[in-house]
Amino acid sequence: MDIDVLLKQMTLDEKIDQLMQLAAFLFDGASHEGEITGPLSDLGISNRTIHNSGSVLGGSGASEIKNIQASHLKTNRLKIPLLIMADIIHGYKTIFPHNLALSCSFDPGLVEETAKIAAKEAAVSGIHVTFAPMVDLVRDPRWGRVMESTGEDPYLNSELAKAFVRGFQGENIQTSKYSIAACVKHFAAYGAIEAGRDYNTVNMSERELREVYLPGYKAALDENAQMVMTAFNTVDGKPCSANKDLMRYLLRDEWGFDGVIISDWGSIRELIPHGVAEDEKNAAALAIEAGVDIEMMTSTYVSYLKELIEEGIIEESRVDESVRRILNLKKTLRLFENPYRFLDENKAKDIIFSEEHRLVARRAAEESIVLLENDGVLPIQKDDDVGLIGPFAESQDLLGPWSWIGDRDDVETIAMGMNKVLSKPFHTQSIQSVHTIKEEEMLGSIEVAKKVDKVILALGESSDMSGEGGSRSKIELPEVQLELLKKIHEVNKDIVVVLINGRPLDVTRVIPFAKAVVEAWFPGSCGGSAIGRILVGDKNPSAKLTMSFPDSVGQIPIYYNHHNTGRPYDHNNPHNRYVSKFIDGPNKPRYPFGYGLSYTTYAYDNLNLSQPVLTDNETINVSISVKNTGKRLGDEIVQLYLRDHVGEVVRPLKELKSFEKVRLAPGETKIVTFTISEEMLRYTHSDLRYSSDYGEFSVFVGTSSANTLEASFKYQMESEEN
Amino acid sequence: MDIDVLLKQMTLDEKIDQLMQLAAFLFDGASHEGEITGPLSDLGISNRTIHNSGSVLGGSGASEIKNIQASHLKTNRLKIPLLIMADIIHGYKTIFPHNLALSCSFDPGLVEETAKIAAKEAAVSGIHVTFAPMVDLVRDPRWGRVMESTGEDPYLNSELAKAFVRGFQGENIQTSKYSIAACVKHFAAYGAIEAGRDYNTVNMSERELREVYLPGYKAALDENAQMVMTAFNTVDGKPCSANKDLMRYLLRDEWGFDGVIISDWGSIRELIPHGVAEDEKNAAALAIEAGVDIEMMTSTYVSYLKELIEEGIIEESRVDESVRRILNLKKTLRLFENPYRFLDENKAKDIIFSEEHRLVARRAAEESIVLLENDGVLPIQKDDDVGLIGPFAESQDLLGPWSWIGDRDDVETIAMGMNKVLSKPFHTQSIQSVHTIKEEEMLGSIEVAKKVDKVILALGESSDMSGEGGSRSKIELPEVQLELLKKIHEVNKDIVVVLINGRPLDVTRVIPFAKAVVEAWFPGSCGGSAIGRILVGDKNPSAKLTMSFPDSVGQIPIYYNHHNTGRPYDHNNPHNRYVSKFIDGPNKPRYPFGYGLSYTTYAYDNLNLSQPVLTDNETINVSISVKNTGKRLGDEIVQLYLRDHVGEVVRPLKELKSFEKVRLAPGETKIVTFTISEEMLRYTHSDLRYSSDYGEFSVFVGTSSANTLEASFKYQMESEEN
Repeated sequence: MDIDVLLKQMTLDEKIDQLMQLAAFLFDGASHEGEITGPLSDLGISNRTIHNSGSVLGGSGASEIKNIQASHLKTNRLKIPLLIMADIIHGYKTIFPHNLALSCSFDPGLVEETAKIAAKEAAVSGIHVTFAPMVDLVRDPRWGRVMESTGEDPYLNSELAKAFVRGFQGENIQTSKYSIAACVKHFAAYGAIEAGRDYNTVNMSERELREVYLPGYKAALDENAQMVMTAFNTVDGKPCSANKDLMRYLLRDEWGFDGVIISDWGSIRELIPHGVAEDEKNAAALAIEAGVDIEMMTSTYVSYLKELIEEGIIEESRVDESVRRILNLKKTLRLFENPYRFLDENKAKDIIFSEEHRLVARRAAEESIVLLENDGVLPIQKDDDVGLIGPFAESQDLLGPWSWIGDRDDVETIAMGMNKVLSKPFHTQSIQSVHTIKEEEMLGSIEVAKKVDKVILALGESSDMSGEGGSRSKIELPEVQLELLKKIHEVNKDIVVVLINGRPLDVTRVIPFAKAVVEAWFPGSCGGSAIGRILVGDKNPSAKLTMSFPDSVGQIPIYYNHHNTGRPYDHNNPHNRYVSKFIDGPNKPRYPFGYGLSYTTYAYDNLNLSQPVLTDNETINVSISVKNTGKRLGDEIVQLYLRDHVGEVVRPLKELKSFEKVRLAPGETKIVTFTISEEMLRYTHSDLRYSSDYGEFSVFVGTSSANTLEASFKYQMESEEN
Repeated sequence: MDIDVLLKQMTLDEKIDQLMQLAAFLFDGASHEGEITGPLSDLGISNRTIHNSGSVLGGSGASEIKNIQASHLKTNRLKIPLLIMADIIHGYKTIFPHNLALSCSFDPGLVEETAKIAAKEAAVSGIHVTFAPMVDLVRDPRWGRVMESTGEDPYLNSELAKAFVRGFQGENIQTSKYSIAACVKHFAAYGAIEAGRDYNTVNMSERELREVYLPGYKAALDENAQMVMTAFNTVDGKPCSANKDLMRYLLRDEWGFDGVIISDWGSIRELIPHGVAEDEKNAAALAIEAGVDIEMMTSTYVSYLKELIEEGIIEESRVDESVRRILNLKKTLRLFENPYRFLDENKAKDIIFSEEHRLVARRAAEESIVLLENDGVLPIQKDDDVGLIGPFAESQDLLGPWSWIGDRDDVETIAMGMNKVLSKPFHTQSIQSVHTIKEEEMLGSIEVAKKVDKVILALGESSDMSGEGGSRSKIELPEVQLELLKKIHEVNKDIVVVLINGRPLDVTRVIPFAKAVVEAWFPGSCGGSAIGRILVGDKNPSAKLTMSFPDSVGQIPIYYNHHNTGRPYDHNNPHNRYVSKFIDGPNKPRYPFGYGLSYTTYAYDNLNLSQPVLTDNETINVSISVKNTGKRLGDEIVQLYLRDHVGEVVRPLKELKSFEKVRLAPGETKIVTFTISEEMLRYTHSDLRYSSDYGEFSVFVGTSSANTLEASFKYQMESEEN
């Protein structure tokens, strides 16, 4: 297919139609078809638009998507196939732990594997593009969408962004079987919304944007992600869907990205409420001029682009540029050869939610569960008298937000998981709601707690308490659950709290009443089994937090890679008033980035640098011995951080630069090695130059961002040699 | 005095000494003298430095300052007098309500009057310069120093900055009797510190900095403030005391400021912990190069500037530039003619804390007290049976932070104030601490509450809970005070809560138990009388909040002049999930900017625009009728806001552009008029251009930012006329 030849055959209307994306239900062949008569026609969306749109959002299953494509090709004059896009965020039907959970595995290989399975299930169902990975760096747990992110660190964010893209797209998006194209989102800095209130304002300097927020997007594009989605928010007063600096100058000119840019749902028309566009026509002009190729779910392009071109406000060549990109993507995906790509109804039946996939889902959950507290009550003995209570004891609400194809009926509950691992029956009392507890549920729970040795109390947030539109101004468990915990504690002190939730919570009022706290997140389709295996020690927990857990909501924003300030708090001199601290609570988070316990213990020793000096040509090898000093096999995530002591601008106190997961048998010691090179020292200077400076550095290696051994080195010119 | 001639006579050491500022206690003649032997000598501060320093920080009273200056002139080779500087923030000995309180008066005339009195008391005590006004715009009540600020609005911030400078400096700083020079601080954006934690990081775009944070400083300089103090914080990674963009390019080159720039206390040496300077020598080089003239309380300049000049790193002309500015200020203040300026021990006795001054302090407090809630219980009848309890009932901790010359023993307590206004004795029970209540205090309080008709419960924060180093992660009253409130409520429902505090508090748990809530702030020396007069209605409260009171700490940052977002919350459609909101609490603050009740009521009507179109040559007159519909004389603060509907960047939903306080007798109606001109529409565009755009605007006039009448107009070119 020669795209230029095709482009020449297209009328202007047909070109503009390629820039339109509508939801699947509007299309002929959809399970629920709908003629356009009502509100959508007011929006300028006509049946003609639908027949000629360039892409579709959603579509449930192979059969529906096949019908939509077939029907489209019958009516589309030039037989240009539809691009089928959907949000495949943490699994298609086999639902993996949500992204923040999965990031706690610190395991790019595992992340890639889950994305590959998601792609396979989606691909056989006819989907061509996923609106993933979401790589928005986050520092505010009030935001509901932190559950979709991979946390607060730019480096981990980037490594996992690449892993997701590799998983979705395979080796080669053109040829890799069952691959789907990745669309990195949300460009840019959606994670920095003010007060964590969804869709809110973002403001920061360009330098901060480049240093902290952009690396994730850049990494996904370096891994060849085919598309970029704009963010809902403004950046410094410019909504992202009208932000020429971000799209035209940065993405296109500086980074050389030539793939498709798509708006988020309705975000072009939202330029009006934002207050930068007078009306839809103006919104269309701003968005196309700034660089958005595809408009999702509003119709300013189909309604006004032609008029804008006729009036000379927008050049037709600008539309051609966008159409060419869209057609190129269709060509890359070989849709002109086979518009159904990997769609295969029989194959779908075989592989979707297969046992193989579910085993990976279970393993992914096990690798994502973070042990926050344990005074020895865990692991549970398989023949312990156990009571399992709380609103998540028997709940199938374990998939979390963005799991629309996932089926709750398929979910393994915690009760099912416990049933598999305990050698004798356990007591249970279900509670229906996370917000209210009926009297009989409360009494039943207390009764269970009275008669057992150990209580597993499964508390948390329902999935609608996080995700898009799920911002909370308070980040504690619902009050009623804290009451339940207290009441249970009155009759049984051996309480293990299992948390199901999508964000870092303030667990200050949980800790005094729990002997162990297990952060299980939304663990996905096979979460119950994973939790069961963790609780009895069939799997030793190894995950580490990728986002700080605040001590209280009043500490936010709180993140490990902060600055020292001119008056740092000194723990040895806590009564000095004139330092950067709160007078009524700690500066430290409850649990820092990189934190997570195990059923075994590790000793770090002998942090060694191959040489005290780094030059442009010579790297430093860092080694450390890590010993399993406990009685169980364990996987330890060894973390390396750097600090640049004097920068042209202030540098963070610590920055993650490498990590490695090592498996250690009881008593076993391994030497873990890392290499420090000049590239690791680069940062964005005040003139936006990305480079390193000579000087003194610290290297920290340890088990969390707050628990490390330290050494130092000097980065200098070759000739200066010590 | 020819400054250039003098400069030529000075040795390099003598010049560098001029750049040093040390605290008064170090100087000969101070009440507590101290030879330099210990730690200060380690810092490079020697007795020679002290003898030759250019300025002094602090000094208590005329006699001490006179001795210091006299002693200095004896030993200083060239007889260059010392500049005497001090923090005169909200009064010298006559303490006015702190600045955030005072700003609630919306009364630049009153602000100027208080500053004039502060200047007079300070001037006769020998002080030449005050480190005020502090004009840091604030949006985070966790920060302790919000009490020093004038709130969240750039326009009000600017108007009050000018009023403070006029008050301190008089008509003409050279000639105005009892004037002192103003030093505007903290440059820049100290109020935007992350998480409200003092001294923490600041990051924002330059456009945001210019639009929101800089206007206050600029206004003070437009009013001829003689000095600028740098801030402790970084701005985008550069500590302000090493920030050449802020000092050299913005202050000096763009704004043309040629006065003295002084560091904040120790902030030059803090460049080391910040992580931009390797050592003191490097810190000195960065600070002088970036533009700091005087170093406060560290000694990097005296220790290293000579060496830096000898090594050619810093040019001697750079030092000359700073010295010339300092000498010029001394000349402006006529210190070469009279180094004591207005110092006058006899006069000091007459005027300091005079009855005249105290009357202004009382009036200022009355104008600053904000009535937050009142179901009719207020005003109290003078012959009511009243009980006055709570930790502030008899407390003299009413001055607030930054009132170091103020004497608590002079403070009129609330009890004293009530005593003056009630016609019969009242019952009281004192409580010693804000943090703990002794059993007998609790029981005594309950006893009082049982036997009276109305309870006045004086709750709040002690002065060390706000101010510098007083950041809180929680912004509620101490738990024990909330318990007291509940217990009192069990025995008496007629509770008036009077709040003494330095920041917006979360009063969510106060409201259900109080029939009235009076925000009295730290009302200063005569606060007790002011509160008494307000409570009985001798003065009808009229103040309005200048900083939003959050509904909970989890809403922060929250401010009235925010953006609409692309998905604004619609109060008519509260169940729409996909809008910018919290799912567990309101978007709105508890009390918005501009809010405050009165004992009377006002009706706004007939918002009228003289014409629907604004052009570059023609203004619009806005009129509104305001009627006092209640039974008491009242002062109403009528507020005018504008909204620019479509901007090149997103514009705030509302921006205060004018206000007027009108006095209305019961039943009286006044027409209040404002003029809208093109200048009011200007804003900082993405290319930093400060200009206005043609288009549609709304004008809102009303009693608070959330309660207004609305009209609209069009700003267009002359020729377009409707």
